[in-house]
Order: sequence, then structure tokens, then C-alpha cells
Amino acid sequence: MPDETSSGIEKLIQGVLAGERLQLARAITQVENESPAARPILQALYPHSGRAHIIGITGAPGTGKSTLVTELTRAYRQMGQNVAVVAVDPTSPFTGGALLGDRVRMRTLSGDAGVFVRSMATRGNLGGLSKTTRDVVTLLDAAGFERILVETVGVGQAEVEIASTAHTTVVVEAPGLGDEIQAIKAGVLEIADILVVNKADRPGADATIRALAMALGRSAPQPIRHHGQVVSVANAVDPLSTLPAWHISVMKTIASSGEGIEPLRQQLETHIKWLHDSGQYARREQDNATRQLTHILNAEIGRRIQHNVPATTFQALAQQIWQRKTDPYSAADILLESLFASGLSL
Amino acid sequence: MPDETSSGIEKLIQGVLAGERLQLARAITQVENESPAARPILQALYPHSGRAHIIGITGAPGTGKSTLVTELTRAYRQMGQNVAVVAVDPTSPFTGGALLGDRVRMRTLSGDAGVFVRSMATRGNLGGLSKTTRDVVTLLDAAGFERILVETVGVGQAEVEIASTAHTTVVVEAPGLGDEIQAIKAGVLEIADILVVNKADRPGADATIRALAMALGRSAPQPIRHHGQVVSVANAVDPLSTLPAWHISVMKTIASSGEGIEPLRQQLETHIKWLHDSGQYARREQDNATRQLTHILNAEIGRRIQHNVPATTFQALAQQIWQRKTDPYSAADILLESLFASGLSL
Repeated sequence: MPDETSSGIEKLIQGVLAGERLQLARAITQVENESPAARPILQALYPHSGRAHIIGITGAPGTGKSTLVTELTRAYRQMGQNVAVVAVDPTSPFTGGALLGDRVRMRTLSGDAGVFVRSMATRGNLGGLSKTTRDVVTLLDAAGFERILVETVGVGQAEVEIASTAHTTVVVEAPGLGDEIQAIKAGVLEIADILVVNKADRPGADATIRALAMALGRSAPQPIRHHGQVVSVANAVDPLSTLPAWHISVMKTIASSGEGIEPLRQQLETHIKWLHDSGQYARREQDNATRQLTHILNAEIGRRIQHNVPATTFQALAQQIWQRKTDPYSAADILLESLFASGLSL
Repeated sequence: MPDETSSGIEKLIQGVLAGERLQLARAITQVENESPAARPILQALYPHSGRAHIIGITGAPGTGKSTLVTELTRAYRQMGQNVAVVAVDPTSPFTGGALLGDRVRMRTLSGDAGVFVRSMATRGNLGGLSKTTRDVVTLLDAAGFERILVETVGVGQAEVEIASTAHTTVVVEAPGLGDEIQAIKAGVLEIADILVVNKADRPGADATIRALAMALGRSAPQPIRHHGQVVSVANAVDPLSTLPAWHISVMKTIASSGEGIEPLRQQLETHIKWLHDSGQYARREQDNATRQLTHILNAEIGRRIQHNVPATTFQALAQQIWQRKTDPYSAADILLESLFASGLSL
């Protein structure tokens, strides 16, 4: 049982700040479970975050993302940097997959105190995945990890958006996966800062690279970022900046043999430097802050509704809806009127 | 330009009810764009929905879902039933994929007035996908389509949840896709009413079927449904019912040659009959009504927040957050206090 007294929470917070793995793992569990301790932990640790370079790595199943992430972690370790990996597990939206993924990685990177790996099962609320991932990243950031790799499968909407909220987004492709699996589409370029063709020793690698390069040639030089769901914020960066635009490069890797990993690491460093020099870093941080504020607002309002509406009221309305005695829009209006009349207090 | 006068909206509504394809397509576009016309359209058409059998079909990329859906549509047409297909496009979460998918299907099923195909790009708000899909299904239902197939990729969280809100959920597997792509996990059984091993002429098909049967043997006989994010509703069905439980079957298909499609269609009919006989139909409808009400509430509150909070206020708070002068939880509290003090009127 987690200790949720204020001294227990304080111990977790201090433990995370001191980089203690056990306390960090416990704090993450509190956040994942949305326990009552989650909020004070996040409030206390948030001001200590903001130092990590957060890298989103996304790609279709079969592109070798996990191996790439493992090898990239090794490359960062050779430079003496601490690395945390958050794997939003691709294969099972429910149970099972996350634990297995952890075990496989742990075997490769185990015993290294400068590496922390956390797999997240995506079980749970629709829409909650993005908020939880961000919160876990905040904890890892506050714990002093300098590079945080967030790995997601580039197929689901939520998963792609999680990767695209990082400072730098890497889209991983691989040759020969077949049409349905290939994500070589103009659209994917919207989120990519760096494109990687992994498994580059496979037949068809050059065709894949050519197709990507052609698609890049047709696209705008600057990726369009997506905004939060309730409010979008105007561009806070001077649009007349004379700094050069970022050029999305296509890089070849063979993660299984480590080939191309060190150039990729260097390109990631180049991108973070460009983000700072161009003012884009501030813009992405502000976009992310907006999204985070929006998510928290939505979650908090949801909690207040649950607290204020008796389950029987909700159930009665749901019954009228499915029996087509009313429509869900009119039912929502009825609920909202009574909620706001009551002030929707805690 | 869509005509958003009340007579224009009335024309759309009457057109949908009369099953006019052009008006239906226009109404769907209004709903997808969340235009001002969307809400009156949905309010008017909702009471006319509730007659269709909604079938969710989900599976990993490469399992041949699209071909299966096309062949299943053909099988329903041979029985004289009207079919609508909603494809939440798997390969591109942004642009491009949806249009291509439409074109490929249209070629196969074109010229048949009893078939309506709509692909949905998943571009847009995180979390909005599920609500929009449900709204589009409501329109198709009101337009008189008797079977509505909702096809999603079984990898992303949002996409899996969309499929699992149907009356009947079909999970598609295929042999030989490799470990990362295979979704044969205990978890996937939680949402499946029928399991299909497609591409059953490929090597490894029997091993795939055996693995699924074994996994089924270990799981509970009754799939667990997932509930909405704000409120979950108690079981409205008599738990002491003496009606037999549903047995999830594993079916073999070779969609490309049409093999196994007719037995699958028959099993789908068996399932809808079982849903009605067992009282599960009412339960799933009530669960879905709850989810829908929740989504609409969240969207409506989001809209009111956007209307009540000046963009400059939101922007100023976002800036304080990313500069770590405050944390997003405290910022959300500040916003909520001022919002509820103002009554959060329209």
C-alpha cells in the first residue's frame, strides 16, 4: 500500500528530486493510478522540470522502434548522459504487453543507474493516455534525466499526438512492410523533425528513402504542430525571424547492429540547438503548456461533474437516450443547466 | 459553401431521412467539421436512429481488414440489406490515407445504391475521433442503413475503443505478421465478440488459431466492456439471468477469395439475436448512451470555457507554466475559480 500521508508524499517528492529510483517508480505509479497523492506530487515537482530534452519516437509496428530506442539509449550513455525511456506499448491496448516490453528492455540495459525504463499500458480512459504520459515525463524530468525518449506506435491517433508533443519528433520507417503498414504519406511529415529509415540493410531501403525524399520535397519546410482541444494559442515567435528553417533529414539506421545510431544522436542534438536558436523551443513549450492546462481543466471538470451529478440522474438520462425518448444533446443541456445553477462546487 | 440557414438544415435532415446520398454526405461533412449546423442535424436525426446493427471490426495493420469489410458488405448485399461502412483510416492519422482508402473501396462497390462508404481522416482533436465516429453512425442509422460496419486499426487506444462501442466487435488476426504486429494477447479478448483469423491460407494459420483458442480457454466467457470517462453506469441487466453466455468463436476466412465470409455474416446475425435475447443489447445501448452523453458534456464545457476565457488570459497562464513560474494544476484552479464565479454561461 502506498503511503498517502503528507509525510509519505513529501518523502516521495524528495526521493524523486534526489533521483532515487524506487521513490521515482512509486511516484510514477501514483500518477498512473491518478491516486489522491498524484496532484500534490506533480504540483511540487513541476517547477523542477523543464531541463530535459524530450524526444518522441514513433513509427508503425515492425519498423524496429524498440531496438532503435535501446541503441539510442546506449549512445547517450556513452556520452555520459542519463536517459529515461517511456514506452507507450504498441501491441496491447489492454493488459500484458507493457510488462513484457519492460522485461525485454531491462535485460539489455539492466544494472545501469543512468537508465530508467517505464512501459505504460494504455488500459484506461480514452484521452487519459496523453495526460498521463506527460505527467510521467514531468516526474522523470524533475528526477534529473537529461534525455527522455517517448516511444509510441505511429498508427493510433492518441499515440501519434503523444510523440508529436515532444521537443523533437522522430518518425521511423522501414523498407518492405507492405502498403498498409507503410506510413510514407505526406501527412506523417507534418509531425517529423527527423525521419529514420531503420532496417536499412533490407531490400527496398533505397526505394523507401527515395519515396520519403520525394514526399519531403513536396512538403512545406516547417512542420505544422497540432494544438490542444479547447484553446489554441497564437504563434508567440517572431514570424519575421531571419534564422534558417529546420531541414528534415532522412537518416539510415540498422538499429540491430548499431549502425547509424551515433549520427542520429548527433542530429538530435543539432535539432535541440536549432530549437533554442530559432525561438521554436519557447513556442513548443508554450503549445505544450496550453495542451496540459486544457487536459487538466477537462479532467477537473469531469471530476466535479461526477461529484455533483447523482449516478441515478445520469443513469436515468442515459436510459432515455438509448430508448430514443430524448437525444444526447438535449440531455447534456439539462445536466449543464442544473450543474451551473448549483455552481459546480468541489 | 454549405447552406446553414434553418431551411438549408431542414433540407439536409429530410434528405437524410429519405436516404438521399448527396444530402447524407453533406450532413456527414457538417458533423465532421463540427459546424453550427451539426447540432440541430443530430438532435433531429437521433430519434430516428437505433435500428441499425453496428459492427466494429478491428485488427492490426496487415490483417486484411479492408478486404474483409468489402467482402462482408457484398455478403450483406446478397441478402438484400443496405450497408454503410465507416473506415477510420489506419495508415494516416493526418491527411491522405482516408481519400485513398475511399477510392479503392469505391472501385469495388461503386454503383450500388445500397452501399455507402465513408472514410474518416483522424486529423483533428485528440479524443474527438470517438465522438465524431459515433455521430456519423447516428446519421447513417437514421438514413436507414441496416448494417453499419465501423472499421478501425486495432493498435491505437482511441481506435480500439471506437470498435468496442459497437453492438458486435470483430477482432481480426492473420498468421505470420511477426511478434510486434500480432495482437494475440489476453487483452484483446476483452473486446472481441467474434475472432477472425483472416488470410487463413497462409502458413502458420493453424498455430494462430490454436494460440487464440488457448487464450480464449483461459479467459472469462463474457467480455468486459469499457465505460465512459466521467461516469460509469451500473449493470442494468439481471445478473441472475438463466440465458446462456455468449461463446466467442474463432472463425477462419480468406477474404481475398471470399472464403468464410458467409459463415461470418451468419455468426454476426447470431450475435445480434443473442444480444436481444440475453438483455445485453439494452446494456450495451445504455453504456453507449452514457459515453455519448459524457463526450457531449465534455465538448460543451470545453466550448463554454473557450467562450468565457479570453485568449490572452489563457496565453498568459500557459506562458507562466512553461516558464515554471506556476504549475498547470494551480493554473487550472485559478481558471476554474473565475469560470464558476462567472456562472460559465453560454
